[in-house]
Amino acid sequence: MNIGDFKILKKDSRTKARRGRLMTAHGPVETPVFMPVGTQATVKAMSPHEMESLGCRILLGNTYHLNLRPGMDIMEKCGGLHKFMGWNGAILTDSGGYQVFSLTDLRKITKEGVEFQSHVDGARHFLGPREAMRIERILGSDIAMVLDECIPYPCEKNYAAKSVARTIEWAKICRDEPHAEGQLVFGIVQGGIYPDLRERCGQELVKIGFNGYAIGGVSVGEPEDVMIQGVEQGIAALPEDKPRYLMGVGVWTQLVESVARGVDMFDCVMPTRLARNGTAFTRAGRYPVKAAVYKDDLRPIEEGCTCYACTHFTRAYIRHLLNVNEILGARLLTTHNLHCFLRFMEEMREAIEQDRFPEFRERISSEYKTIDKAHAQKK
Amino acid sequence: MNIGDFKILKKDSRTKARRGRLMTAHGPVETPVFMPVGTQATVKAMSPHEMESLGCRILLGNTYHLNLRPGMDIMEKCGGLHKFMGWNGAILTDSGGYQVFSLTDLRKITKEGVEFQSHVDGARHFLGPREAMRIERILGSDIAMVLDECIPYPCEKNYAAKSVARTIEWAKICRDEPHAEGQLVFGIVQGGIYPDLRERCGQELVKIGFNGYAIGGVSVGEPEDVMIQGVEQGIAALPEDKPRYLMGVGVWTQLVESVARGVDMFDCVMPTRLARNGTAFTRAGRYPVKAAVYKDDLRPIEEGCTCYACTHFTRAYIRHLLNVNEILGARLLTTHNLHCFLRFMEEMREAIEQDRFPEFRERISSEYKTIDKAHAQKK
Repeated sequence: MNIGDFKILKKDSRTKARRGRLMTAHGPVETPVFMPVGTQATVKAMSPHEMESLGCRILLGNTYHLNLRPGMDIMEKCGGLHKFMGWNGAILTDSGGYQVFSLTDLRKITKEGVEFQSHVDGARHFLGPREAMRIERILGSDIAMVLDECIPYPCEKNYAAKSVARTIEWAKICRDEPHAEGQLVFGIVQGGIYPDLRERCGQELVKIGFNGYAIGGVSVGEPEDVMIQGVEQGIAALPEDKPRYLMGVGVWTQLVESVARGVDMFDCVMPTRLARNGTAFTRAGRYPVKAAVYKDDLRPIEEGCTCYACTHFTRAYIRHLLNVNEILGARLLTTHNLHCFLRFMEEMREAIEQDRFPEFRERISSEYKTIDKAHAQKK
Repeated sequence: MNIGDFKILKKDSRTKARRGRLMTAHGPVETPVFMPVGTQATVKAMSPHEMESLGCRILLGNTYHLNLRPGMDIMEKCGGLHKFMGWNGAILTDSGGYQVFSLTDLRKITKEGVEFQSHVDGARHFLGPREAMRIERILGSDIAMVLDECIPYPCEKNYAAKSVARTIEWAKICRDEPHAEGQLVFGIVQGGIYPDLRERCGQELVKIGFNGYAIGGVSVGEPEDVMIQGVEQGIAALPEDKPRYLMGVGVWTQLVESVARGVDMFDCVMPTRLARNGTAFTRAGRYPVKAAVYKDDLRPIEEGCTCYACTHFTRAYIRHLLNVNEILGARLLTTHNLHCFLRFMEEMREAIEQDRFPEFRERISSEYKTIDKAHAQKK
């Protein structure tokens, strides 16, 4: 396979789910894939070698944060993000747009891009499509996302239409900018909750031509059914033979539903962020490890789990560590949660390969609950 | 060797330094030894397996903290501290006295012990010699320290004398209490800056008879020469054939000077605490990794170092992690600092074995500087 090739290994016969392989400059990525988030050049609490041991082959870096700290002068001198953080797997970088647009009171959008103030020191910066591509080129990520405008929910159609036009224009500029060697570029379908805007955006992006396409501006506060519609509408105009990436979604039922509609890639801070807040993910749902009921529970975080945390430590110990704010608590729970997410995706890939994805989907929707009361009661 | 045996393998011919081996219920400990501190059932930022990889064979647990959280009910149900934290090496536990006496405004000392309020929730607790021994018995440490009163510096002789009498009385009670299987018990020589009190305290403790003896109440704010005198006075009355432990000291020149006077064991939070503040220890001195001068420095934290951090990551990267408060920064610098301390002790042991300890001592006193300006200039 050449860099950028996306091979569909198997299509589910009853849904639109696909089992694929995307070749990057740092090796192949098996899809559907969940990409852990490494915002500031580290997946929080984890070492790159631990990420490798977990079977992670691609992670996310954040352009906005890395551009502020350490900054691109340092990044360039350090030879790019892979070398800087000691990670030999693939990296996808966002464009920084999402973070910049989130700084509602600190930014000003123009045709050229966004003027904004740093959340760190208030310094003024400018981010346009050329600037985003330059940063991502220096980072040297395997997949660079174009700069797009991520509109809020709700958003008037008038503004959404203008924004989509801008997103398409920026996408063109991004496509034409120079990229790092072997760097793939993904376009981002926007359009909010408006099917015609999403369709038009997708069509225009496909005309420009990208190595893959993301669906952006979903999971920004809208109800789940609206979100799933957004995914369907976003995919409608996209070619079969390119990977599709649903940005910022990590709820398991939503992952499965999106895969059933043809999505190949995901990222979300949930497994890492919630770990630091003391929430464990399991195949049966999530639960708060800090709860008193686990204070002398000698079982692992998840029974039957083969991760480092579960094969060496008890709930009682990890609960203690979390309660007294010990770093090891965040480490162990992050390890478990990432293991849990990556195994979940592995099982989903196997289910597609073995033509039993609909059964897998059915099981997840019926079994997975957001809060697993059974955990506490089972004791 | 039987549990509790202390074998002196080699005596330096020109100083009082000794190279020894102390047998604990969890294996032998090679002395002189530096014991990393694992206050709350974890060496901060480290996993027990990483501690093992660093060559650590004994670490410290804190009775005061562990008694408050998770508490001894949980500890007992979890089978003691080794099982609780997944550590198979030796553990030395303090008696909690030092922490309790530090709560100046929250405690009241009587003949029976100390009444104090928890720093966590203000709850009232009582710690006497029997209570300390009971806690350490439940913790199941390999070495239990007796409850002593650690007086401040300066301290009037009148109070110091009363305090020493109390410390001796408590030591007797501690010796007579039941202990965990294979648990060694160490007495603690107090007496402040008064040689006669230190001597009397040592003599009385030896009469009671312990598996080892600590020198307490040093490095509590007194000048370094007074501290070193305290070590000499503390050791004066102690038997040759038992290990001597200097509590809370970690400055390298002080370690060497104390070993030259016959000390075998040390503990200190410095390598771990200062790592979290961004200070790196090296053979040439310590330096602040966060300093701007290291922002694009592609060298490891310490050139030639074989630790995980130094063989995989640059100063530029670790500086970035520390500056943006990423857990991995604390992990990597803690790993390096502990490696550095443990290798330093290893070299000291080798120097004694090879009869070149005085040369080692000379080199350390002349080379080691607290702040290594050379680091920044060398670039």
